[in-house]
Amino acid sequence: MVERRASPGYAFGMNTDHISEFDSALRRKLDTKTKPQGSLGRIEDIAAQVARLQRRLDPVMKRCALILFAADHGIAEEGLSAYPQAVTRQMVANFASGGAAANVFARAQGMDLRVINAGVIGGAFDMLEVEEHAIAEGTANFLTGPAMTAAQAQEALYIGEHFGTCGTHDATAFGEMGIGNTSAASVMAHKLTGLPLDVLVGRGTGLAPEGLARKLSVLERAAARTGALTPRAVLEHYGGFEIVMMTGAMLGAARAKRIVLVDGFIATVAAMAACALDPSVRAAMIFAHRSDEAGHSAVLETMDASPLLDLNMRLGEGSGAALAWPLLSASVAMLNEMASFEDAGVSGPA
Amino acid sequence: MVERRASPGYAFGMNTDHISEFDSALRRKLDTKTKPQGSLGRIEDIAAQVARLQRRLDPVMKRCALILFAADHGIAEEGLSAYPQAVTRQMVANFASGGAAANVFARAQGMDLRVINAGVIGGAFDMLEVEEHAIAEGTANFLTGPAMTAAQAQEALYIGEHFGTCGTHDATAFGEMGIGNTSAASVMAHKLTGLPLDVLVGRGTGLAPEGLARKLSVLERAAARTGALTPRAVLEHYGGFEIVMMTGAMLGAARAKRIVLVDGFIATVAAMAACALDPSVRAAMIFAHRSDEAGHSAVLETMDASPLLDLNMRLGEGSGAALAWPLLSASVAMLNEMASFEDAGVSGPA
Repeated sequence: MVERRASPGYAFGMNTDHISEFDSALRRKLDTKTKPQGSLGRIEDIAAQVARLQRRLDPVMKRCALILFAADHGIAEEGLSAYPQAVTRQMVANFASGGAAANVFARAQGMDLRVINAGVIGGAFDMLEVEEHAIAEGTANFLTGPAMTAAQAQEALYIGEHFGTCGTHDATAFGEMGIGNTSAASVMAHKLTGLPLDVLVGRGTGLAPEGLARKLSVLERAAARTGALTPRAVLEHYGGFEIVMMTGAMLGAARAKRIVLVDGFIATVAAMAACALDPSVRAAMIFAHRSDEAGHSAVLETMDASPLLDLNMRLGEGSGAALAWPLLSASVAMLNEMASFEDAGVSGPA
Repeated sequence: MVERRASPGYAFGMNTDHISEFDSALRRKLDTKTKPQGSLGRIEDIAAQVARLQRRLDPVMKRCALILFAADHGIAEEGLSAYPQAVTRQMVANFASGGAAANVFARAQGMDLRVINAGVIGGAFDMLEVEEHAIAEGTANFLTGPAMTAAQAQEALYIGEHFGTCGTHDATAFGEMGIGNTSAASVMAHKLTGLPLDVLVGRGTGLAPEGLARKLSVLERAAARTGALTPRAVLEHYGGFEIVMMTGAMLGAARAKRIVLVDGFIATVAAMAACALDPSVRAAMIFAHRSDEAGHSAVLETMDASPLLDLNMRLGEGSGAALAWPLLSASVAMLNEMASFEDAGVSGPA
């Protein structure tokens, strides 16, 4: 069951004596490393976040899994994407045979990669590399009604939570594939944040300007179909199976005290939904990169998130998260392996 | 001998038919990968730069060396650093025993690391891990006269060029250690660019505001000692042995068609000096990160350089370059390993 739980003690900003003692020991450990204090900037922040999450001064950050969720979207029949819907299925086969960007980056960084069919049109893949967990063959078109039933959303969250929890990785990155899923994510973000749709709707895989105007107009009609919604209702009305599964996976991973490395626009909307369901999971999240997809910066801002990378990417698939992973492992290696001034016999400031 | 040579054919922006044919084949290879065109942003740019440098559509980017040059600075006797001069020597010992940030990051990223004594006070280290190439035990104080002789600058360039050229790495990153070296680099940048010193002088290892004002005042007097200078004369008057050796190493590596991964403020000034001596080497340079040291952004701008990372770091030692290295290997892996639409049976845009 995915439900709201009390915030665990590792959340930022808590001011109990216990936390203070841990935090000051952590600060001392960082500040006695052989470097000017604070000179490793965000690398020190990451190390501190991981240490707090794991509640240890010698945290572990050796292995990261990249889990890709794929599903189709009923809204695709409105023709809001530059690519045909069949590409979702074709790309899953590409993930399975190792040829996509996510595969290449995961291999280059030594990450394990899993491919999950969360609801792709055309049925099971019958490929060893694809794990079959389809909720249905694509969502319903959310222009005219809810994308999924409450039971489907619950099932997707539940399966996702399993993927977040299982395994022995220290960090998890989640990627997505689904033609039409920037449309779903834009309306979800609109409903979750109240930001106007026109700052949240972007070119996706590469719409031309006239296509973008049409996308905005269709999504405005879809959003007008409902009023204010609970986070669960946002998932049901406008989610995709891969997005809801990713939301559940983030909840599961964060509760298992695993770092959640958040990819681009769609993953950030899933992260936002996860935080709406359980604010405590925010403490486990590290934002990998700032995507070029129009709405990403606005969504990041509402989450007070500063991504690690800004490389003008807009692919999804967890590709940005995979590229950011080495920064996490290096940050924790710094905390664990760097010598102190005393150990190395190096003088401090004059 | 380090001297100016004609620009080789791989430089950007050349418009011979030969280059055009290569570039359009490269563009075609990137654009038929299974992703929306351009959706990997700067990752595609890096892959293209490496391919052009190596003049092949399947470039190699598997191994990177991090070479650390250390030396002392006569200007340190003016008390412009937060740390005592002895720290240069102590940190070399720390590099040798593997405890510094550069060691940790290099290990985490699978890079080879070498430590070069380019001119540290106190003589040879008598440690297997330190390669002895000291020009002298520190430079002269450039407040009152040239930091080094023309012969010393030439020797440092020559030795540096050797380090850039030798080995079998596809990329090289260079780091530096030398108490006082932000002072040297600031005046060098001022003389090379004409930018005012107050935008180039920063807190270094962590000066307080009053120390910063004093540093600026001393460096203004030092800069006033000379008028306009040739690049060689800038090296002699205001360089450090580690900075000049790094300049030579960048020249050597770039001429060997090896990617030069440029670290922070001091490394960028060395890169600027290298480009002033031979503009063709710019094509081999990738800028790793934007440092928090005050002058770095201004210097990057004069070189039209957009660094890959911006993590509020200001340590030096090649630490930022080491963190950026996985982005290079991943970029080239993308070019070599990603499937095309045709190979993967994926449809293009509708």
